[in-house]
Amino acid sequence: VVGVSCTRFGDRYDASYGDLAREAFAGVLRDASVEADRIDAAVLATYSPGPHGGKSGASLADAIDLRARPISRVENYCATGTDAFRHAVLAVASGMHECVLALGVEKMKDRPVRGLPLEGRHPVLGRGSSAPGLFALAANRYMHEYGLRRETLARVAVKNHANGALNPLAHMRKNVSLEEVVAAPTIAAPFGVLDCCPTTDGAAAALVMPTVVAKQLGANAVRVRGVGLAVTTAKPFLDPGYGYTGFAATQHAAAQAYDMAGVRHPDREISLAEVHDCFTFTEIANYEDLGFCPKGAGPAFIDEGHSALRGRLPVNPSGGLKSFGHPIGASGLRMIFEITEQLRGRCGSRQVANAELGLAHNLGGPGAVACVVVLGKES
Amino acid sequence: VVGVSCTRFGDRYDASYGDLAREAFAGVLRDASVEADRIDAAVLATYSPGPHGGKSGASLADAIDLRARPISRVENYCATGTDAFRHAVLAVASGMHECVLALGVEKMKDRPVRGLPLEGRHPVLGRGSSAPGLFALAANRYMHEYGLRRETLARVAVKNHANGALNPLAHMRKNVSLEEVVAAPTIAAPFGVLDCCPTTDGAAAALVMPTVVAKQLGANAVRVRGVGLAVTTAKPFLDPGYGYTGFAATQHAAAQAYDMAGVRHPDREISLAEVHDCFTFTEIANYEDLGFCPKGAGPAFIDEGHSALRGRLPVNPSGGLKSFGHPIGASGLRMIFEITEQLRGRCGSRQVANAELGLAHNLGGPGAVACVVVLGKES
Repeated sequence: VVGVSCTRFGDRYDASYGDLAREAFAGVLRDASVEADRIDAAVLATYSPGPHGGKSGASLADAIDLRARPISRVENYCATGTDAFRHAVLAVASGMHECVLALGVEKMKDRPVRGLPLEGRHPVLGRGSSAPGLFALAANRYMHEYGLRRETLARVAVKNHANGALNPLAHMRKNVSLEEVVAAPTIAAPFGVLDCCPTTDGAAAALVMPTVVAKQLGANAVRVRGVGLAVTTAKPFLDPGYGYTGFAATQHAAAQAYDMAGVRHPDREISLAEVHDCFTFTEIANYEDLGFCPKGAGPAFIDEGHSALRGRLPVNPSGGLKSFGHPIGASGLRMIFEITEQLRGRCGSRQVANAELGLAHNLGGPGAVACVVVLGKES
Repeated sequence: VVGVSCTRFGDRYDASYGDLAREAFAGVLRDASVEADRIDAAVLATYSPGPHGGKSGASLADAIDLRARPISRVENYCATGTDAFRHAVLAVASGMHECVLALGVEKMKDRPVRGLPLEGRHPVLGRGSSAPGLFALAANRYMHEYGLRRETLARVAVKNHANGALNPLAHMRKNVSLEEVVAAPTIAAPFGVLDCCPTTDGAAAALVMPTVVAKQLGANAVRVRGVGLAVTTAKPFLDPGYGYTGFAATQHAAAQAYDMAGVRHPDREISLAEVHDCFTFTEIANYEDLGFCPKGAGPAFIDEGHSALRGRLPVNPSGGLKSFGHPIGASGLRMIFEITEQLRGRCGSRQVANAELGLAHNLGGPGAVACVVVLGKES
């Protein structure tokens, strides 16, 4: 990864879909010290095309004036961003392309994304099948089985807001207290509004090249150590065999990425992680599914401060979806941006100490798909 | 390419989105003599997700019961199918995957696809910006500049219907006469209804593996000689510099694919082609853009019978979009199916003689994107 960029996330009524893409594109070229002409293929990450852009590769071509080259749109629920990055890696690894752009952009404030698609109509789940409602089912089951407390969920929000408050690009740059999170209006019990990530506009990008070419360029690069993507089913919550306390897609995707990266003990080898905290509970499930702690130990992992900025495995030093916001196609590339900048040691007040190996993780749909990327410091 | 398949195209009210995907999947496994378990990644080609499927990789996972593996959805206007195939090729070439499925499926009869997205509103083009209306502008300009006659356009429909009548999987298996095409109700002058491809349901698939593995398997394989994809702009028809008589995206994509395949004289080296004949005029423009004949010589190419089934460069021996139908995400893979079967010599009454090198070509949007694939006989 020779360059990364991220726009300011938030209520970006000041910027069109194309404006956001251009802002991310200019940023990634500047960061990589690469001319636009050098890019020989691109992947656009957009989940829900808006009325003025986002469908097909041509919308990116027009936004950034990149012509006569392959540009594809990849869509994979909320894992769209990391999956687009994965395709950029495949394109470079194939030897068919030498400089591939992955760019994620989403305008969500102009037109809200519809509810998660659930096929058919379940007698109970058919009503209230919004994302908060679905993930709340998992949180409730986990509370029942493992004794997770409301305050522990809230602690995830407190941590991620504290990190995001340090981040000039985050959507919600404010600290929240445990009391505020617990007292916030209920969205879907146990989640209050501060347990849920906001709806956000934004764009982010990464530029991938072969290691040898990156070295010739003298790029401040990080190395792709592993990628994994796993799909389970579009409707795990309707599967009678589903246990509701974790996400198999994450476990499979992590196994693939760890295998490729040669990571055997993620809890000791991974220095920091950006994980998919669409809801506070999701982050706790991710600790376990990614192997940062054993099953059932997720609550203690946050309670004991291990995932804090100065903990032994900082999680979401950027502020996470929780405070950064979640413009769907952009989020995965925003994570790649954060991990790359952390490995380069350029994160100032939110810099993680001894960042050697970083992980980015997206979870899409109601646990339908997960993508994991492991990036390492270039030695 | 170790296996291909194609469902019957048409009014498939008998089959759901998932049924069509399953039918194509069973076909490709049977054709390749490969077990489902061997597939280690997949790419889903769907342009317009319907109410019961098509969004994200998970809809394919559920349809064909392929779990815990990477499945991505690729979307690129009407080039979605060939682009998904291109991504399967990249994934295999990367060395990260050994057996990759590309599967295209579209249900168009249940819910029509909306008009082509044109950003903003042009005073003239803003009204009537349907696909027939846009391509008719190009046809009219070409008629003006090169003296193309109405009867020559009709001859493309006559040829492709004659080929499709021989094809048990085609949507419209009937011969049409020159008089019928010319006398058919006008859709957008000069196009009558028989100059336009129909709206269709269908699915098609291809399985890609490394050459050495295909040989070990003893597969009846064809070799990927070249792939190319080029995006120009989402709205070439609104570009004041656009000449309206051809499609730059096709020219660029072909140049990429020919370069990779070592093809210097496509008019002599390509044995047969499946090209994007969404309208009769499009096929004539494609002859020129793909280098089968010089600029302006497209009308003579059809008039003199060169693109006929027994001509020197048969085009759309399958029947083309014109008679086969155009379920958007499936069409490109249906072309890969036809070229593969032709190179294998298994096309019976529509078999092209001496098929050594075949080309598949999709054109997407209003000339916004094109994808070209060159396949060769395995020696």
